[in-house]
Amino acid sequence: MIEEEVLKRIKPDDVERHKLEKILSNVMDRLKGYEAEVEGSFRKGTWLKGDTDLDVFVFFPKEVGKEYLKEMAIKELVSRFSDYNYTIAYAEHPYLMLDVEGVEVDIVPALKVLSGSEAVTAADRTPFHTRFVTQHLDEKGKDEVRLLKRFLKGIGAYGAEIKVQGFSGYVSELLIIHYETFKNTLAEASKWVPPVKVYFTEPAREFTEPLQIPDPVDPRRNAASAVSMEKLGLFSLASRYYLKEPSMEFFFPKEPHYDKIKGDILLVNVILEENVVEDILWGQVWRNVDKIRNILTERGFRVIDISAWGNNEKLTIAIQLESKDIGKYYLNIGPYFYQWESIDNFVRKNENIWIGRDGRLYSIKERKETDVTEIVKSNLSFKHKFKLELEWVKEVKGDPCLMRFLRKSPPWLK
Amino acid sequence: MIEEEVLKRIKPDDVERHKLEKILSNVMDRLKGYEAEVEGSFRKGTWLKGDTDLDVFVFFPKEVGKEYLKEMAIKELVSRFSDYNYTIAYAEHPYLMLDVEGVEVDIVPALKVLSGSEAVTAADRTPFHTRFVTQHLDEKGKDEVRLLKRFLKGIGAYGAEIKVQGFSGYVSELLIIHYETFKNTLAEASKWVPPVKVYFTEPAREFTEPLQIPDPVDPRRNAASAVSMEKLGLFSLASRYYLKEPSMEFFFPKEPHYDKIKGDILLVNVILEENVVEDILWGQVWRNVDKIRNILTERGFRVIDISAWGNNEKLTIAIQLESKDIGKYYLNIGPYFYQWESIDNFVRKNENIWIGRDGRLYSIKERKETDVTEIVKSNLSFKHKFKLELEWVKEVKGDPCLMRFLRKSPPWLK
Repeated sequence: MIEEEVLKRIKPDDVERHKLEKILSNVMDRLKGYEAEVEGSFRKGTWLKGDTDLDVFVFFPKEVGKEYLKEMAIKELVSRFSDYNYTIAYAEHPYLMLDVEGVEVDIVPALKVLSGSEAVTAADRTPFHTRFVTQHLDEKGKDEVRLLKRFLKGIGAYGAEIKVQGFSGYVSELLIIHYETFKNTLAEASKWVPPVKVYFTEPAREFTEPLQIPDPVDPRRNAASAVSMEKLGLFSLASRYYLKEPSMEFFFPKEPHYDKIKGDILLVNVILEENVVEDILWGQVWRNVDKIRNILTERGFRVIDISAWGNNEKLTIAIQLESKDIGKYYLNIGPYFYQWESIDNFVRKNENIWIGRDGRLYSIKERKETDVTEIVKSNLSFKHKFKLELEWVKEVKGDPCLMRFLRKSPPWLK
Repeated sequence: MIEEEVLKRIKPDDVERHKLEKILSNVMDRLKGYEAEVEGSFRKGTWLKGDTDLDVFVFFPKEVGKEYLKEMAIKELVSRFSDYNYTIAYAEHPYLMLDVEGVEVDIVPALKVLSGSEAVTAADRTPFHTRFVTQHLDEKGKDEVRLLKRFLKGIGAYGAEIKVQGFSGYVSELLIIHYETFKNTLAEASKWVPPVKVYFTEPAREFTEPLQIPDPVDPRRNAASAVSMEKLGLFSLASRYYLKEPSMEFFFPKEPHYDKIKGDILLVNVILEENVVEDILWGQVWRNVDKIRNILTERGFRVIDISAWGNNEKLTIAIQLESKDIGKYYLNIGPYFYQWESIDNFVRKNENIWIGRDGRLYSIKERKETDVTEIVKSNLSFKHKFKLELEWVKEVKGDPCLMRFLRKSPPWLK
């Protein structure tokens, strides 16, 4: 059976478990005197084999305040691990990232609060999530979470970061707690019509997102606020197709070979020349994608699809058009002949004017810019230093991201 | 003053009047024994200098019926004019067309009825129109009609035939009878918002056309039913511009020289190989124009304008596109991910499928036909034998119709 086979591949073995426990025990030793706690999927027992970070949260009194975490707390923590291989990373506030025997260990400073709803930063809420999940998931449930996570990864809907806008680990856990099994979660998801409401408790305010799961530890918050309509739909569609015909492709999709170029495809390679936090970068990437799509459409181009991939060093925005060639002139629709106030102005500003069969005035206008690369170059913007390289796709040399962009259909769909 | 100058050019002189009267008197002599009557603009005194046919109607008892007019009546009439230069022409039913000293004299058989509302054919109604107009127009009024007719001719809105879909002579006369002067008619027309109602009497049924003038001799009929929204708008717009700045251009427009080709223009020359009545032909032409516009738009082309000109031997349909080049592939919009009933079918029929940011499924489709000339050739249809010659406009060799099509703006507008 598919799911058993998947579990065999994703359920960690004792060797891995012992190794991670030993690493953690060393790290915790270094944190003596602090109120430190292991969080994350390892603690909750829902991590996937060979695919986890370790999260250790260090709690400071609420009174020291958010600012203390950013400056002093980090310095304190660094002093405990100065002989480790470490870097300082940035999310909502900075944290310490250790590399221990190839395993990433994140040491995250947080404020100690009495309940999830008192959290000042997102990190303060984490121990309450950990508690809720460990209290509601038994061993069987943990495997169900693993299946769901692997499924979401396989279809490309896993991850709450802005780049993905999909399902977080916590949301995966909440879904299994709510629907009990992987199969049942898929059965429910296959029937979803947005807005989808998954309620442990009533929400403490109104949500607007397509997937609405009031956080059981803080019902003012939508635990699934990151999930976009696209990723919700992707999960729902994949659920239906999996239930119809289960296959390993959902969990471990093969990279398809696909090299048929349809339409004209412009690859915009953006080389970042400054260090940027991923979430900040991808916020900008998707805003640029929207902007480019709107501007090209407004200028008369027919956009088939725009997407982006890559990392914070080099990323690619791929723009697929029905055609990069467009007429120099276009039809301009004016007022009706009896809209006298607008007509003077229309006649003054236009040439080649006539009255159409519907009684409207029309004219022919000239497009100012018909070169897609120029339009893209002058409209892309990032808050960080970057360099652009643009190229029209002529042949496909096996880049899997480009091949996925060309093929579009997920392997499990068609 | 402009209007006086125009009148000088369009008001017939005594030489012309005497010549036409002499022709008519000879024709009437030949019709002795019939109940014959002169109708038309000559009889009403509203014809333009050097620009008239003569209309003689011959009335048969109502009891002989419509069919008699088509067959026997024509034969009878022909026998009276067999030594004339004549042809048999066709409108609603056949009539005799004489060429007398370069003047066209139409001998039209009609049924004698007691009132306009009892008319069996349009011709039967004509004497009542003649009576109404002669009773309501004085000498001054006739000149006002002449100015209006010349104005309508100048702007291209004169003629109720299907080719033009504009204002008939009778509608011009009714407008002057209603609004009294040329200037006042323009002042009213410049304020028109469709549907425009010009009432001598209440209509005897509901009209749907943009200009509604219940025929005073038969109020079930809209005397202005031929006037299209386009020609109504053209007249209204021209009226406003004339009142702002009167000029001879409205009455006697100069043919502009214009040779700038914007977009891609396909000329479809249709050579008719059978004789076709103009109204029948132009009904087909405009249906073809609409069909070609719809099909090209549906196939993804951007149509700037389509028009047609010519006669029943050779006519030209001009198709102006933003570009004749179009991508081989296009974006196809599918159902939302939760419209399960439609999705199976969509997935089966499509390839390159993905879920968009709005939760809809999209795919890429291939255009079956991207050659405009092929699309046009396989979609044009006439009920008569014809031959096609298609050519993309590369240079303009001074054809005034083509130059007008290229320029579009009437000379009085811009």
